[in-house]
Amino acid sequence: MSNRYAIILAAGQGTRMKSKLYKVLHPVCGKPMVQHVVDQVKQLRTEEIVTVIGHGAELVQDQLGASSQYALQDKQLGTAHAVMQAKQILAGKAGTTLVICGDTPLIKAETMEALISIHEEADAKATILTAAADNPAGYGRVIRNELGQVQKIVEHKDANESELTVKEINTGTYCFDNEALFNALKKVSNENVQGEYYLPDVIEILKAQGEVVTAYQTNDFNETMGVNDRIALSEAEKIMRKRINESLMSNGVTIIDPASTYVDADVMIGQDTILYPGTVIQGQTQIGTDCLIGPNSELKNVQLGNRSVVKQSVAHDSSIGSDVNIGPFAHIRPQSDIKDEVKIGNFVEIKKALFGKASKASHLSYIGDAEVGEDVNIGCGSITVNYDGKNKHLTKIGDGVFVGCNSNLVAPVAIGEGAYIAAGSTITKDVPGKAMAIARARQTNKEDYVNKLKFNN
Amino acid sequence: MSNRYAIILAAGQGTRMKSKLYKVLHPVCGKPMVQHVVDQVKQLRTEEIVTVIGHGAELVQDQLGASSQYALQDKQLGTAHAVMQAKQILAGKAGTTLVICGDTPLIKAETMEALISIHEEADAKATILTAAADNPAGYGRVIRNELGQVQKIVEHKDANESELTVKEINTGTYCFDNEALFNALKKVSNENVQGEYYLPDVIEILKAQGEVVTAYQTNDFNETMGVNDRIALSEAEKIMRKRINESLMSNGVTIIDPASTYVDADVMIGQDTILYPGTVIQGQTQIGTDCLIGPNSELKNVQLGNRSVVKQSVAHDSSIGSDVNIGPFAHIRPQSDIKDEVKIGNFVEIKKALFGKASKASHLSYIGDAEVGEDVNIGCGSITVNYDGKNKHLTKIGDGVFVGCNSNLVAPVAIGEGAYIAAGSTITKDVPGKAMAIARARQTNKEDYVNKLKFNN
Amino acid sequence: MSNRYAIILAAGQGTRMKSKLYKVLHPVCGKPMVQHVVDQVKQLRTEEIVTVIGHGAELVQDQLGASSQYALQDKQLGTAHAVMQAKQILAGKAGTTLVICGDTPLIKAETMEALISIHEEADAKATILTAAADNPAGYGRVIRNELGQVQKIVEHKDANESELTVKEINTGTYCFDNEALFNALKKVSNENVQGEYYLPDVIEILKAQGEVVTAYQTNDFNETMGVNDRIALSEAEKIMRKRINESLMSNGVTIIDPASTYVDADVMIGQDTILYPGTVIQGQTQIGTDCLIGPNSELKNVQLGNRSVVKQSVAHDSSIGSDVNIGPFAHIRPQSDIKDEVKIGNFVEIKKALFGKASKASHLSYIGDAEVGEDVNIGCGSITVNYDGKNKHLTKIGDGVFVGCNSNLVAPVAIGEGAYIAAGSTITKDVPGKAMAIARARQTNKEDYVNKLKFNN
Repeated sequence: MSNRYAIILAAGQGTRMKSKLYKVLHPVCGKPMVQHVVDQVKQLRTEEIVTVIGHGAELVQDQLGASSQYALQDKQLGTAHAVMQAKQILAGKAGTTLVICGDTPLIKAETMEALISIHEEADAKATILTAAADNPAGYGRVIRNELGQVQKIVEHKDANESELTVKEINTGTYCFDNEALFNALKKVSNENVQGEYYLPDVIEILKAQGEVVTAYQTNDFNETMGVNDRIALSEAEKIMRKRINESLMSNGVTIIDPASTYVDADVMIGQDTILYPGTVIQGQTQIGTDCLIGPNSELKNVQLGNRSVVKQSVAHDSSIGSDVNIGPFAHIRPQSDIKDEVKIGNFVEIKKALFGKASKASHLSYIGDAEVGEDVNIGCGSITVNYDGKNKHLTKIGDGVFVGCNSNLVAPVAIGEGAYIAAGSTITKDVPGKAMAIARARQTNKEDYVNKLKFNN
Repeated sequence: MSNRYAIILAAGQGTRMKSKLYKVLHPVCGKPMVQHVVDQVKQLRTEEIVTVIGHGAELVQDQLGASSQYALQDKQLGTAHAVMQAKQILAGKAGTTLVICGDTPLIKAETMEALISIHEEADAKATILTAAADNPAGYGRVIRNELGQVQKIVEHKDANESELTVKEINTGTYCFDNEALFNALKKVSNENVQGEYYLPDVIEILKAQGEVVTAYQTNDFNETMGVNDRIALSEAEKIMRKRINESLMSNGVTIIDPASTYVDADVMIGQDTILYPGTVIQGQTQIGTDCLIGPNSELKNVQLGNRSVVKQSVAHDSSIGSDVNIGPFAHIRPQSDIKDEVKIGNFVEIKKALFGKASKASHLSYIGDAEVGEDVNIGCGSITVNYDGKNKHLTKIGDGVFVGCNSNLVAPVAIGEGAYIAAGSTITKDVPGKAMAIARARQTNKEDYVNKLKFNN
Repeated sequence: MSNRYAIILAAGQGTRMKSKLYKVLHPVCGKPMVQHVVDQVKQLRTEEIVTVIGHGAELVQDQLGASSQYALQDKQLGTAHAVMQAKQILAGKAGTTLVICGDTPLIKAETMEALISIHEEADAKATILTAAADNPAGYGRVIRNELGQVQKIVEHKDANESELTVKEINTGTYCFDNEALFNALKKVSNENVQGEYYLPDVIEILKAQGEVVTAYQTNDFNETMGVNDRIALSEAEKIMRKRINESLMSNGVTIIDPASTYVDADVMIGQDTILYPGTVIQGQTQIGTDCLIGPNSELKNVQLGNRSVVKQSVAHDSSIGSDVNIGPFAHIRPQSDIKDEVKIGNFVEIKKALFGKASKASHLSYIGDAEVGEDVNIGCGSITVNYDGKNKHLTKIGDGVFVGCNSNLVAPVAIGEGAYIAAGSTITKDVPGKAMAIARARQTNKEDYVNKLKFNN
């Protein structure tokens, strides 16, 4: 295997996106388009990856980081000009160079691998990735000679009648002999209507030199799709969504409606877990086996154990154990650590809290900045008063504590093991273990008073 | 351009809808079918629009109001009979009359405009809107002569073998020379199996008189779809949904899953706003730029600024500023006015309240009938007690007030600027500015009392 | 009509499902696949239904109960071997035996009825259910003779070029003359690569005996689909979902987006009810007329009256009356009985409670283990304190009671008719009718105290 290089074209502004965000940074299934491309390219074991970015596209560099080198294309003078910017890094090196656009998020490493194999087997100077288009109108057609080699690429507007019937189109992904590429690039001219330097001209130059140019036709047209507007972006998202969900289903996850279940590319889910519709699972989430998620749950960067249930709820950046029952309508905010067998019921918010094994907050509570022990019962409507208007404070609740309904635990405060807080109490001082704390007024019944209420008169 | 008139046929009961609601009033993307038709027809600059309604269809009249005149078709005696009811308003006037059914919600003004242009250019007495049907079974076929003019319309059941192969079908929308129309209508007979007066007979009558009849074939069959049952209604909704969402995406809105995002026809959304799946946006809602909406949010008649977030929440008939963060699981009820930089967190309800700049109600609160100043912190579980069982009262909260958790503000009550309400207090009297108000019992810890609790023995 | 029998093949492990759950128990629209098959077979008025189950498949038996008899196939030695296991129950009986796989959840009784009719009319010994496949690759082809009778079944790998062009495929569902079936089964051999006994061999044996074998081709290929992995499971779910929703729409239910509305097979819904997207309706739920359900509501085993609204809410195993308004973000837990004209608002949980006519719990409440009378107003944040850490107790609230906001009703406790609970009270003792109960501290305003708060210094 010869050395491999890759050039990723990511300098286009993408005006049809109508966006402040650089085109290649628009995400598909939670990951920017160009990151999808780089992630696939990295599987090819390339020596160098050069991403060509536009002026001011620091955000692209921030996204890709050290996984790529960068070449700046200061002015947008065409695809050949863009590739030329990689000269300083790549020119003069022996090997095979893949050129691919950063707005083709659906392309797979195995397809690029097949392209390079064909290229190397044919000992070609250039190999074009092509696809069969049902409706090729608008695409450049790839015209082959009787040997099956590429004779030329004809743009739609320049094609004759016979060429217009060709359904094999140029996808815009190529691989080249690296030295031949940079030699040919010098000869590309911008004498055309747009005054741009076009990469397909390299093919013409190589052919004129008598070099072998081949093509590899992938059988999945969708995979080569370039995203130029948000309608195409939504189509790419749909295809990627189907791909992710079919992979999950093949591995033993039940998805009631794959068309309405939104799982990011890097999420992992165990066997016999069921995803109900309207569920959104993002980031680096990992879900164990035999869980029930949704309908309409949202998990982002969550570690979830086995046999846990998350219904109509939202959880972010937290760890949740096994046999946990969450929702409906619960909200787990970042930095929460929820242990096994916990119940977090409806209208409960947990934030930056340790919540011990088998403890329960079943209804209408807020537990924030807290350490909750095991077997604790947080009564309905109970609140950790973590904020005094200036600072946040910690609440500690020992094992086996019973917190009565509608109680306030005014932090900083500690409730000892096995203590009991009477319903309706506002607790401002620590409570010793096994003590009962109470802070409420006695009840008075004013008989027949209702008839005396002023608004009843 | 000659004078233009339009007759909208809206008298059909629509028995296959199995509904108490008149067929043409069933909404598609939030707007009754007949309103879609009228909204498009109005773009044609007609002199008169006459909607033919059935006996008792006052609701149709209520819906369309002054944008149309009305003719009553007392008995359902066929489409020609329906058109005849517009006689008093239109007969004798020179010009072109469009006849269209009120159950074709997908038709576009530009298509009707093209129909009328063809009609006027051809100097025809009638022009039929046709479409190419992949499967024309059941439809009336439009048979053209060698000049491309219409020779006749043949109903499916009457068609010979050669006619059955014709894929050009009558969509039921026509335009006519107005005088020719009403003259021909007098000659339409009801001597047929159903005993009804059929509008296509007018074509036959005009042809027998030697008049020119033409046809305009639209290339979008879907657009001409008539809705006769709820399955078709859901299909029309799907097509309209796609149309609305593609228009939004073309204008720079990201829609993760256009198939599961439900935006009404009149909603406006700014560039770089992202809509997550399961989101429903209704009525006259206007959303600014760079917002994040959903998943699973519902907005109806809401004005929303820029850079605001509304997650898993519901908001109706309210104004919400810029840089506002709402949800998940918040509910903004009508007549709320939420200023910039506000945070409304989980399990918070706002009703008929002014909520000042940079103020926060982060959890488990109800703020109703209230005026809340700027930089106010509403503690978790705090409530405006706006109802005494008989009347609703106002709560006023000054700038910079801190309301402690689980507090009750019993309205009418005013909290002065910069005041501080201790957690767990029920506030029944006004609080001066900078004062601290407290209304709770002191805490008592009963040591070792838990072992004495009667249910533990 | 001769006697009818059915054999359902349900012993396959379904390794491609990658599941601990037996394949035929995976649900489609809330009902296990094999139960769908049995429910359809039962409509054929069979004398006996025999389900062939694998070793350890007690769960299949638990699911189907007494609606079937069972035969154990201890080892998985092929479909003919599976059918053979029914010998003890069926051999020697005169009549027609349907053989069908338990993993074909979409098949309809009317199709099986048509199969049996063709069989009986033709006086055949076997009749194969076939379908026309657009892409028949991989399927066994059914080869007919000039009389239209079946000549043979050819497996894909054994088919010649002409046979490969045949699009009529064997669906794996058959009916047989019962005696001929069991006689032929004895002759089936396992001399093949897999060493298994194949049911199609019975066809060959019968043909060799000169018997008549016919075929009935259904025109719905989807209906015959066998589910072997979770991707197919999701496709079956999608087809079944469409079928259920189209049936509901035909009967006068509006479904805004049938593709994203999830209704179980046995749910009943009245005319002019509207289902918004993301709604999940499960189990034995019955919904009346003119209701609005969703978006994103979940109902399971709920009885719902007429003109009720359930928005963004969850309700399970409860009865809810007419003109009731629930949600958004409400949770009705099992054993609740909610009467007419009730309002259950946002962030309210009802559990095992009677909630009387026209009563309201509009916000942030938990009503559990309670009997609530008529015209009761439960103030925002009010809670029935039903749990003391050991036992659950009952709260009784009489007609016309007003419960002030953020009140605790510590059960067991009874509030008499027309009583009034002051906001912020913790009620531990019974309240007489018409009495006002109050249990809170008086308010103190500490003027200018905010400047003295320690965190402000």
